[in-house]
Amino acid sequence: MKIHLIGLGKMGANLALNMKDHGHEVLGFDLDPKAREVLTKEGIETFDDLKKLLTRKNNERLVVWLLVPNQIVDTVIEQVLPFLAPKDIVIDGGNSNYKKSLLRYEKLKEKEIEFVDLGTSGGTYGARNGACLMVGGTKEAFDYLENVYRDIAIENGYGFMGGPGSGHFVKMVHNGIEYGMMQAIGEGFELLEKSPFNVDYEKLSEVWNNGSIIESALIGYIGNAFKKDAKLEEISGRVDDSGEGKWMIEEALDFGVSMPVISASLFTRFKSRDENMFAEKVVAAMRREFGGHAVYKKKWKKI
Amino acid sequence: MKIHLIGLGKMGANLALNMKDHGHEVLGFDLDPKAREVLTKEGIETFDDLKKLLTRKNNERLVVWLLVPNQIVDTVIEQVLPFLAPKDIVIDGGNSNYKKSLLRYEKLKEKEIEFVDLGTSGGTYGARNGACLMVGGTKEAFDYLENVYRDIAIENGYGFMGGPGSGHFVKMVHNGIEYGMMQAIGEGFELLEKSPFNVDYEKLSEVWNNGSIIESALIGYIGNAFKKDAKLEEISGRVDDSGEGKWMIEEALDFGVSMPVISASLFTRFKSRDENMFAEKVVAAMRREFGGHAVYKKKWKKI
Repeated sequence: MKIHLIGLGKMGANLALNMKDHGHEVLGFDLDPKAREVLTKEGIETFDDLKKLLTRKNNERLVVWLLVPNQIVDTVIEQVLPFLAPKDIVIDGGNSNYKKSLLRYEKLKEKEIEFVDLGTSGGTYGARNGACLMVGGTKEAFDYLENVYRDIAIENGYGFMGGPGSGHFVKMVHNGIEYGMMQAIGEGFELLEKSPFNVDYEKLSEVWNNGSIIESALIGYIGNAFKKDAKLEEISGRVDDSGEGKWMIEEALDFGVSMPVISASLFTRFKSRDENMFAEKVVAAMRREFGGHAVYKKKWKKI
Repeated sequence: MKIHLIGLGKMGANLALNMKDHGHEVLGFDLDPKAREVLTKEGIETFDDLKKLLTRKNNERLVVWLLVPNQIVDTVIEQVLPFLAPKDIVIDGGNSNYKKSLLRYEKLKEKEIEFVDLGTSGGTYGARNGACLMVGGTKEAFDYLENVYRDIAIENGYGFMGGPGSGHFVKMVHNGIEYGMMQAIGEGFELLEKSPFNVDYEKLSEVWNNGSIIESALIGYIGNAFKKDAKLEEISGRVDDSGEGKWMIEEALDFGVSMPVISASLFTRFKSRDENMFAEKVVAAMRREFGGHAVYKKKWKKI
């Protein structure tokens, strides 16, 4: 199938190569010449002009696959729309909020254009060697594109999630679960690090990832990290987030769902970026006022 | 190697068969005739008399492997001690608190008997087909028994954790991480269930377990459960715990470790057993007092 891939960053470039390996014709678009160069070297035709990218031959049905930051999805859709016709398909393969995906689906439906919200997991390695795909949009669009999904996904690693919005909703839930699992693993290693035992974390990760109940891709990733840096001395514990955890808590609030672990995971990430939380200062100040307890100058010098 | 296995329940029986498959001589002990019968049918000699079980031939070094509930480990050790001699090895393959394992190590050391705290993971399937073993005790005892561990573990699924107590400490951490991961997965499916989407959970578990970042043994287990019961209508959400999570939080308190996710996981299990928490009644009663807000009779009938 011919795929017009917009956004040739790490995910887009790897997916492009994966598609090409499976005999699909990929046309790439990126404004960054370096991103284009990576793929042209690999024999993939690339463009910096949407009009040229989206040239229609013989009334073909165009498939436009976006792998761009969620903040610019609407802008990109606006820019490609003039070149699209009824029956064409726009796929958003990034991490967009499912509510926006539902709005985009409705908007494109008015022009008889299909919109597919596609949750993509597995990181850059998966994008290149076999991704995990959570597919939203209509069943008709899923059926039309299924052979592409099958080709670029790991075996059994793709599925139709049930309609417009479902792909990005399920991907959001995936990421929320990921936050909780990661924090649980973090807390476990924290206790090991504070304990009197001197455990080899790389070895432990290997043991845990061979037959234990917590065997998981994430234990594999942290094992790789410990292999490079046995005590993680080279990195700080500041943890960013790219929004999906926040969306998940917002949904929990809207649907009235109790979500203690995933919310605590997100709040712990917020704390990780804030070395001197005002809330902590407030608590420290109150303890001094009512009990004369010690307070500390920044960086724990008693005052 | 000759292994004297005490406790022929689900874990013990499966480990016995696993050891036998790999050419080890297993002698089994259980007071329950049915438990013994399962293994005698498989050609394993079993006993209901410790003296007969622990008959020493030619000054051999006895290896006694316990797979009994942690509550009776001390009792069983008392009962086997009269038959043991210096250099013998007692292995506790169950889930004991590492502090008790340290005491048991010291107590047996006085008699020059080795004590190994062995964390065993992988459930009954792993016990039969390849377990995950976190080995404490001395390095000397580990080296002596390593060929048995290698034989009954999955490939790369065993390791020396660093000394007496470390095996059960690491196993406790494993279980705490497991609590957090399980609760995160639970919360994700809870949101899906409360959402407007009608996702096939068995299919979703399969997709997630092929190439996603949350790919894990636990997603595999929940996928199996959804295969049997698509909406889990046959079971209640009451979740017991067997103590390791509680020990983990106790350690976090002693070592001053922040553990928001694993503690929330444990507290959520407590709540799952308590349909009408007094804390919730207290909050409901206060809201009525200060704001005239509705309260409900048991089972949500407004009063």
